[in-house]
Amino acid sequence: MTKINILEKPKLKNPILLEGLPGVGNIGRVALGYLIKELKAKKFAELHSKHFFPFVILNKNYKIKLLKNEFYYWKAKKPTQRDLIFFVGDCQSLSPNGHYEVMETVLDFVEKLGVKEIFTLGGIAVGEIENKPKVYGAVTDESLLKKYKKTGIDFSAGEKVGYIVGAAGLLPGLGKERGMKGVCLLGETAGFPIVTDPKAGEIVLNKLTKILNIKVNMSKLDGRVKEMEKFIRKIEELQRKALMQINKEDSAPVLEKDQMRYIG
Amino acid sequence: MTKINILEKPKLKNPILLEGLPGVGNIGRVALGYLIKELKAKKFAELHSKHFFPFVILNKNYKIKLLKNEFYYWKAKKPTQRDLIFFVGDCQSLSPNGHYEVMETVLDFVEKLGVKEIFTLGGIAVGEIENKPKVYGAVTDESLLKKYKKTGIDFSAGEKVGYIVGAAGLLPGLGKERGMKGVCLLGETAGFPIVTDPKAGEIVLNKLTKILNIKVNMSKLDGRVKEMEKFIRKIEELQRKALMQINKEDSAPVLEKDQMRYIG
Amino acid sequence: MTKINILEKPKLKNPILLEGLPGVGNIGRVALGYLIKELKAKKFAELHSKHFFPFVILNKNYKIKLLKNEFYYWKAKKPTQRDLIFFVGDCQSLSPNGHYEVMETVLDFVEKLGVKEIFTLGGIAVGEIENKPKVYGAVTDESLLKKYKKTGIDFSAGEKVGYIVGAAGLLPGLGKERGMKGVCLLGETAGFPIVTDPKAGEIVLNKLTKILNIKVNMSKLDGRVKEMEKFIRKIEELQRKALMQINKEDSAPVLEKDQMRYIG
Amino acid sequence: MTKINILEKPKLKNPILLEGLPGVGNIGRVALGYLIKELKAKKFAELHSKHFFPFVILNKNYKIKLLKNEFYYWKAKKPTQRDLIFFVGDCQSLSPNGHYEVMETVLDFVEKLGVKEIFTLGGIAVGEIENKPKVYGAVTDESLLKKYKKTGIDFSAGEKVGYIVGAAGLLPGLGKERGMKGVCLLGETAGFPIVTDPKAGEIVLNKLTKILNIKVNMSKLDGRVKEMEKFIRKIEELQRKALMQINKEDSAPVLEKDQMRYIG
Repeated sequence: MTKINILEKPKLKNPILLEGLPGVGNIGRVALGYLIKELKAKKFAELHSKHFFPFVILNKNYKIKLLKNEFYYWKAKKPTQRDLIFFVGDCQSLSPNGHYEVMETVLDFVEKLGVKEIFTLGGIAVGEIENKPKVYGAVTDESLLKKYKKTGIDFSAGEKVGYIVGAAGLLPGLGKERGMKGVCLLGETAGFPIVTDPKAGEIVLNKLTKILNIKVNMSKLDGRVKEMEKFIRKIEELQRKALMQINKEDSAPVLEKDQMRYIG
Repeated sequence: MTKINILEKPKLKNPILLEGLPGVGNIGRVALGYLIKELKAKKFAELHSKHFFPFVILNKNYKIKLLKNEFYYWKAKKPTQRDLIFFVGDCQSLSPNGHYEVMETVLDFVEKLGVKEIFTLGGIAVGEIENKPKVYGAVTDESLLKKYKKTGIDFSAGEKVGYIVGAAGLLPGLGKERGMKGVCLLGETAGFPIVTDPKAGEIVLNKLTKILNIKVNMSKLDGRVKEMEKFIRKIEELQRKALMQINKEDSAPVLEKDQMRYIG
Repeated sequence: MTKINILEKPKLKNPILLEGLPGVGNIGRVALGYLIKELKAKKFAELHSKHFFPFVILNKNYKIKLLKNEFYYWKAKKPTQRDLIFFVGDCQSLSPNGHYEVMETVLDFVEKLGVKEIFTLGGIAVGEIENKPKVYGAVTDESLLKKYKKTGIDFSAGEKVGYIVGAAGLLPGLGKERGMKGVCLLGETAGFPIVTDPKAGEIVLNKLTKILNIKVNMSKLDGRVKEMEKFIRKIEELQRKALMQINKEDSAPVLEKDQMRYIG
Repeated sequence: MTKINILEKPKLKNPILLEGLPGVGNIGRVALGYLIKELKAKKFAELHSKHFFPFVILNKNYKIKLLKNEFYYWKAKKPTQRDLIFFVGDCQSLSPNGHYEVMETVLDFVEKLGVKEIFTLGGIAVGEIENKPKVYGAVTDESLLKKYKKTGIDFSAGEKVGYIVGAAGLLPGLGKERGMKGVCLLGETAGFPIVTDPKAGEIVLNKLTKILNIKVNMSKLDGRVKEMEKFIRKIEELQRKALMQINKEDSAPVLEKDQMRYIG
């Protein structure tokens, strides 16, 4: 049960899918969140799933909000640009196999909208950053390596880690099975997964907008990230608390052995 | 596999769904349990699910009872009143994704009965109550905020917590996706999840009956709650014991390393 | 994915379903195992499920055997007797929701064979047995209470425990939803779940054969139980070891924090 | 959701299925990996599943690779040989019930290709090897025992262990339900599950090629195993790290009790 509610059916020409869900440093989340606002991209679909946390969050202290992922679109203004679909949201799947189910649902949906290329945005936690933070990259096809190497993306991500968990990796991985091409851009961040890193978001965004031939005013990024961070942190904190509550319900006080009486 | 057995097909006019499953302080459970008895609401359907605990309980020491959720209905007696559907029961889902599956089954069912409005009842554990316990509220639509603010509901629930786990949150959250409106009423309770709080149940019930234009004699509440609590506590205790048994079966005695011989 | 392979289609007249899967004291398992051999009941179907442990066992040291549940039938020899279906096997479901799925599959199957009555056999662990071990009982209908009280079954099981986990409880519980009547017979046993208790098996078997008007020579019970126990213990031990292996695979050596480098 | 992408539809005559997925000592994995290269077997299908780890791996530091299982075929060159299907891959299922689902999908697939015989390859960890390492065997049918006993396979595997977890056991076990015959060959290895044992791979390969009437030059085995091991170890390490990350996300910092405020 992963449902997509379609709010509008945009006609898009050869669109590129951009993904930015919560993850290491929340880099994809803040980068695309900023881009959506700056480009005034329009929401056209919402996704919710039984694989998300079984709770609602309270916005503005009183408004019930289901956990969701969202789709936005933006139409190219110039011939050098491409139509874009943004895939962002509150959370990723709670259970391991849920990741696959949600991503397949997303791919079914965007395939019908004509998507043949995917960019996913994420972070790579390196412990300590020596000099200027880098953007690491990974691709589904050799041809993409050549194409994007000249943009200054460092394609030695595998030396630092070796795997990409969740949407940022599975979308291009599963997309390739459908003949799509995928690029994953990973901003180097010193931090821990629960700390949002706006600087890493900025360097990834710089790389992405250059590739997409889009000009975006970055001056408001810091302020926006702080705004977004408040909301992202809240959900993260709630997920941690909810997990605690779930685990608490799952663990029982230890009864003395002689109190143990059960039937089978 | 979540099944609804329909015992009777009531014809209802624009009914409101009221939910009160076990949760913090069991507030919804006792409030609606009392209201069902006082209004002589009639049971018309039962729900059971593979997502509930895999055991039966023994009523009156000998009677095998499947864990269930139940639907009751009550027809309006006056023009100022509305037909009501009560959704109450023994338990909520054991697994996280089960919550979504059971709630979608409930919404499919009540949607066909004409439900467009949902009230869920729950508790909010605040550690310590300074003065008179409050009823906190959360809504799916701004318009509901205006409508119910005058009833004295405190719509700053989000300051105290920020999320609502399980049926009390998911029913309005998922219902909104179907165009339903939802209100969640949360009685302030000092206590711990496993302690039933009849006082918090009473204040929530007072608010709810005022909204629904129903008069209910509250004098029997204390006695009834004690009665109900016995049963609720029993199920809670059994769930804890059963979880212990399940976990016990899942954990093996630690063998010495040289005893470890396995095949793969 | 719970599959039933049908080996033979017996024509049965108003058959009773008897269940004896592994559980507390393995009482149902040894009691029905003995009865099947003594009555020369015939195997007619096998059930396997993705909810069982994901391994095969090695019989006679070399023969690959899938974990299974089995169905046997026996036809009444006298007018006072009834046709019987035995449901026994190697194991129960590993996951909580698997119990419901497997039991519904069993009920779908036996319903088509005309089953309207179910007897499940199990154990009740009481810590210490003061005098002669008792047979406790639980029923789905008041009418059954009256009918079987005179056979000396103690219907105060709920005082000792309060719930019945797995097949012994769910089969009558879910069966009742289909209009079937169910009785659960529980032999009092001092022991722990992993110790087979042939004496408790015998007292349950005595009660059951009296109810079913069947005469069985009990003299070979002790020997047979020892034989069966070897096999039951083996599976139990293997399940514990396998769980350990599964859990071992699931737990990773703790890396130093600065070694932690991941992508998302 | 277990998907098989078919790259080519080979016409095979009475083919034998050979399985070698990661497991104890990675014996099956290295043995079949070597055989595939030596025989120049051709890949004709790929399988991926929601039951695998929810991440992609980075090949050559930059190439996104979905976790997969793969099918290769090889056609007999002589009348004494048989057509072969190789089933190998990166990983097995993460969840217990996933094992059954993936194996049933594999059996559905190879059944259509005419498979009636299965050989699975694995390891048996015995702690310490006294003399020359042995190949243990298990079979689905008595007739196979007679046939293969003369090849020097030791059919007392059950004395050492008693169960076979995952593909190596479930493929012949579930295959038997479809009328297939199965043999499991287990190389004796001293080691721990995460250490690849090329010697045990060699002895199993020797046995297998003798049975299949295939001549393979073993001189390159050591080099190839080292090559393969690098890749296998990487995935294993990543799975351990990923599991750590998943578990880390699942565990919350312990809040003080008075900080606990939740809603239900």
